[in-house]
Amino acid sequence: MYRTHHCGALRIDDVNKKVTLSGWVQRVRKLGGMTFIDLRDRYGITQLVFDMETNAALAEQANKLGREFVVRVEGTVVERTSKNPDLPTGDIEIIIEKLDIIKASEVPPFTIEDESDGGEELRMKYRYLDIRRNPVKDALILRHKVAKAVRNYLDDNDFVEAETPYLIKSTPEGARDFVVPSRLSPGEFYALPQSPQVFKQLFMVGGLDRYYQIVKCFRDEDFRADRQPEFTQIDCEMSFVTQDEVIKMFSGMAKYIFKTVKGIEFEGDFPVMTYEEAMNSYGSDKPDLRFGMKIHQLNSVAQGKGFKVFDDAEYIGGICAEACANYSRKQLDKLIDFVKKPQIGAKGLVYVKYNEDGSFKSSVDKFYSQDDLKKWAEVFGAKPGDLILLISGEKNNSLNALNELRLEMGERLGLRDKNKFVALWVVDFPLLEWDEESKRFHAMHHPFTSPKEEDMHLLDTEAEKVRANAYDFVINGVEIGGGSIRIFDNKLQHKMFDLLGFTPEEAEAQFGFLMEAFKYGAPPHGGAAFGLDRWVALLNGSDSIRDVIAFPKNNAGRDIMMDAPAPVAKEQLEELSLSIRQNKE
Amino acid sequence: MYRTHHCGALRIDDVNKKVTLSGWVQRVRKLGGMTFIDLRDRYGITQLVFDMETNAALAEQANKLGREFVVRVEGTVVERTSKNPDLPTGDIEIIIEKLDIIKASEVPPFTIEDESDGGEELRMKYRYLDIRRNPVKDALILRHKVAKAVRNYLDDNDFVEAETPYLIKSTPEGARDFVVPSRLSPGEFYALPQSPQVFKQLFMVGGLDRYYQIVKCFRDEDFRADRQPEFTQIDCEMSFVTQDEVIKMFSGMAKYIFKTVKGIEFEGDFPVMTYEEAMNSYGSDKPDLRFGMKIHQLNSVAQGKGFKVFDDAEYIGGICAEACANYSRKQLDKLIDFVKKPQIGAKGLVYVKYNEDGSFKSSVDKFYSQDDLKKWAEVFGAKPGDLILLISGEKNNSLNALNELRLEMGERLGLRDKNKFVALWVVDFPLLEWDEESKRFHAMHHPFTSPKEEDMHLLDTEAEKVRANAYDFVINGVEIGGGSIRIFDNKLQHKMFDLLGFTPEEAEAQFGFLMEAFKYGAPPHGGAAFGLDRWVALLNGSDSIRDVIAFPKNNAGRDIMMDAPAPVAKEQLEELSLSIRQNKE
Repeated sequence: MYRTHHCGALRIDDVNKKVTLSGWVQRVRKLGGMTFIDLRDRYGITQLVFDMETNAALAEQANKLGREFVVRVEGTVVERTSKNPDLPTGDIEIIIEKLDIIKASEVPPFTIEDESDGGEELRMKYRYLDIRRNPVKDALILRHKVAKAVRNYLDDNDFVEAETPYLIKSTPEGARDFVVPSRLSPGEFYALPQSPQVFKQLFMVGGLDRYYQIVKCFRDEDFRADRQPEFTQIDCEMSFVTQDEVIKMFSGMAKYIFKTVKGIEFEGDFPVMTYEEAMNSYGSDKPDLRFGMKIHQLNSVAQGKGFKVFDDAEYIGGICAEACANYSRKQLDKLIDFVKKPQIGAKGLVYVKYNEDGSFKSSVDKFYSQDDLKKWAEVFGAKPGDLILLISGEKNNSLNALNELRLEMGERLGLRDKNKFVALWVVDFPLLEWDEESKRFHAMHHPFTSPKEEDMHLLDTEAEKVRANAYDFVINGVEIGGGSIRIFDNKLQHKMFDLLGFTPEEAEAQFGFLMEAFKYGAPPHGGAAFGLDRWVALLNGSDSIRDVIAFPKNNAGRDIMMDAPAPVAKEQLEELSLSIRQNKE
Repeated sequence: MYRTHHCGALRIDDVNKKVTLSGWVQRVRKLGGMTFIDLRDRYGITQLVFDMETNAALAEQANKLGREFVVRVEGTVVERTSKNPDLPTGDIEIIIEKLDIIKASEVPPFTIEDESDGGEELRMKYRYLDIRRNPVKDALILRHKVAKAVRNYLDDNDFVEAETPYLIKSTPEGARDFVVPSRLSPGEFYALPQSPQVFKQLFMVGGLDRYYQIVKCFRDEDFRADRQPEFTQIDCEMSFVTQDEVIKMFSGMAKYIFKTVKGIEFEGDFPVMTYEEAMNSYGSDKPDLRFGMKIHQLNSVAQGKGFKVFDDAEYIGGICAEACANYSRKQLDKLIDFVKKPQIGAKGLVYVKYNEDGSFKSSVDKFYSQDDLKKWAEVFGAKPGDLILLISGEKNNSLNALNELRLEMGERLGLRDKNKFVALWVVDFPLLEWDEESKRFHAMHHPFTSPKEEDMHLLDTEAEKVRANAYDFVINGVEIGGGSIRIFDNKLQHKMFDLLGFTPEEAEAQFGFLMEAFKYGAPPHGGAAFGLDRWVALLNGSDSIRDVIAFPKNNAGRDIMMDAPAPVAKEQLEELSLSIRQNKE
């Protein structure tokens, strides 16, 4: 037997027990004739004691142990003379009578400490050692707890966990599919699912009523920061529900997760905000509501005073940063540089300082009187000491820049506390968005999203104005999930494919089985999907989802531990009837 | 709102309630001036009543409803005059005041009844309709319950559910990998995991201590009956454990599943049988212990009497079928045909009838006296009325044929009751098996399995005799799972790869990261994996795992509902730098 207890188990009540422990050597300290070893496993650390006087040979052996050696020890639990209140096992230590080295260790490539000396690339290559560090181990355990909370909540609400296939048919709508060549059908391919969307809808057609799955999804995208080619989704669907009922169900799930995993209780319902309001007041469909600093439009009070930039602008809007009127020239210049960055793209920034003495100082004093500026301040409800920041131009671009500026100011003012969680639902998304490049509509959520009943009459005439029964769940400015009430009528689904530029033949080839399914008594249904990686990262206070994935890929989609992807044997390709094209010149 | 209650909810206590229900029309019956509709959803059936006298228009509308129409009704719960004790809702019915047709249905391609008129191929194509049938729906719900029981048990035992990647590196050891071409690394491929074996071992190196996952695995095999290219595994691993501890943990899991899901309690430990005993007594490493009928060897009592077939045989063995001495010539001939089938491959079958009067009648009376035959009967402990059946030849072939014959006789005698579950562990498997074709050893379990300490000295000399710390879990003759204590020493792992015919370069290229991991304080570890599909099929009394998979592939690996695999667009292949080879002549 390797152990009677793990390394986090023993307490003062266990004194005098004979115990056997196994674990990793975290630290060896010599103090006079004594040797102390911190023995570590997943559950904690227990202090082992070797005494030169009572057993010199054993103590010598202990002195030779290196970091990360795996050992098995037998000994007796005693009360410590100097206790360690920071450790759950800190009241006791083990006087060791027997020591076996199970496995020596070479010196690890980085220190196995909470603050490691290893860079990210090195820690990814030796991820199995990185997992020994508390921050990584704790993130994986947190992820386990979140998944467990999700399952418990959904189980209690009559959801059936059901598995959908991974080897499916390629449906190029949406992102790019990963494909899997079929050996038995040469020249044909399976695809890995971007989501189980179609299957969960078929479960509803099949009468399963409530379905969920925590499931891997795959997207072959050009990697950007914090995207992974495989990611995990909490995927859910319900029959005979309205949008309000779906929102209520998954608000309950979110509350249950926060309560179970973080001990945080939310009072009342999460706010529900329309897409339009979110865009106008926050410049984003995923507003961070940990702080106010709403965007206000100023066209009516700022135009017509001779300032050409504003007079020509489609949109003028701004935010009010409390108690920032004392910003220096240098600080303001930095903000101007920030909004002019290409990825933000504003042309400039107008500021108005509402001085403590009640006067205003702005970068546009030439055009606006104190009274004019006072009217602006009233729009924001600004107080003396506040700083108003304005951006103008094309409406959507300006709102986007104001969103970035608002987040930046929130960051600077310490208003984005990682331990504070503010959630909301954003609803009434547009059904479609126009893509200038391809000159056609794209589905804002996906092609199966139902238009709002009251906008249905616009489908043929002003499709861009049709709102969808779609909703996103947002926490702290991060889109954690979303969903929609689905189309369950084959004619409407056909029309939707048509709007999205599918020919009837393409629609039939790709989704014929779904439209066929709708002929046989499809129930009304809707659902939601949540990004488990992102939700756990948020709860863990991590900036990257890589921190909460056991074996993540790097930003180039590569597993640098096992070195994948990699070439395969010639015979494998031959069996698959494939050959590799050489790059064309 | 679509419903206040689902269709399995209402009881006698709900009488006089105003309710709203939604569901599918299972059946419309007209009886005099009344129309009765069975409204169905996942939860049950509720009877709706329409009365021609009180509301003729509504009753007319109801009469026109077809099977599988989706409707929403409002009405009042009343007590039935003639109750249906077979239905949980059988005490009540709903007098309908309002009826909305949510969605009409075309006539389904097969009847949505427990016994459908649809063949398997048709039901697979319309799997979403098949799922509406109770046997399929109940199988999916049973699967959910099993998964939930597994998670609850493992959670309670400190296992961490952790996800491993699906896009990994191809390791051609074992079955054939499915591969996934990488677009960003042209000419390179990911592979889909055949199991998370290597990752779970790395979790142990990482100190996670106890890991589990219910996870999809992939094997590109030539399809045989009841194989699926993707299947689901309950995958587990533990650190600092002995074989006995692993067996104890997962015996506990099996008992918990049986108790939770089927209400069956097992007393005491499951039997543990060595591989050698299983082979000698049952001719199989997965004996069906629902019945006895053990195989006995007869060489010592049957050779040397002039019967050349037996005298020349390496092995003579048989079984004793109770109370079958009255088998007719025709019945015996059928058994002879059975064992001579190519897949069983016996040359013939010798029988001995132990007549009720104490005399013996055999097919080899020419060579054996009554006394000789009496000695055979004693080996089996046979009684008057029993039938002894013997097969001889090469040992392994004969045992294999006797295993098939024993199962066939068990079937004929009704000894293989689907509602009876008998489990055991088979242990001490050989580490290696010799493959005549490739003239090299294969790992009987996998290359990471640890040899038994006491056989380690045979590794260099008689490797075929080395037993492994490997174990299989068998229920009713079906291998439900298995596992092993793993190698955790890089030198031993190197030696194992060497025995399996890997060059050092191949071993390094494929498993270098694992052997590197073992250098940094790897703990002793072991685990097990269980086939969820097979376990659920067994609990469900299904012969095929397809019955317990929501969207299975057919025997050619094809999803006939969505028609996958399928050709992909030329552009997709170009992006992947691939081209399809034309068949060579």
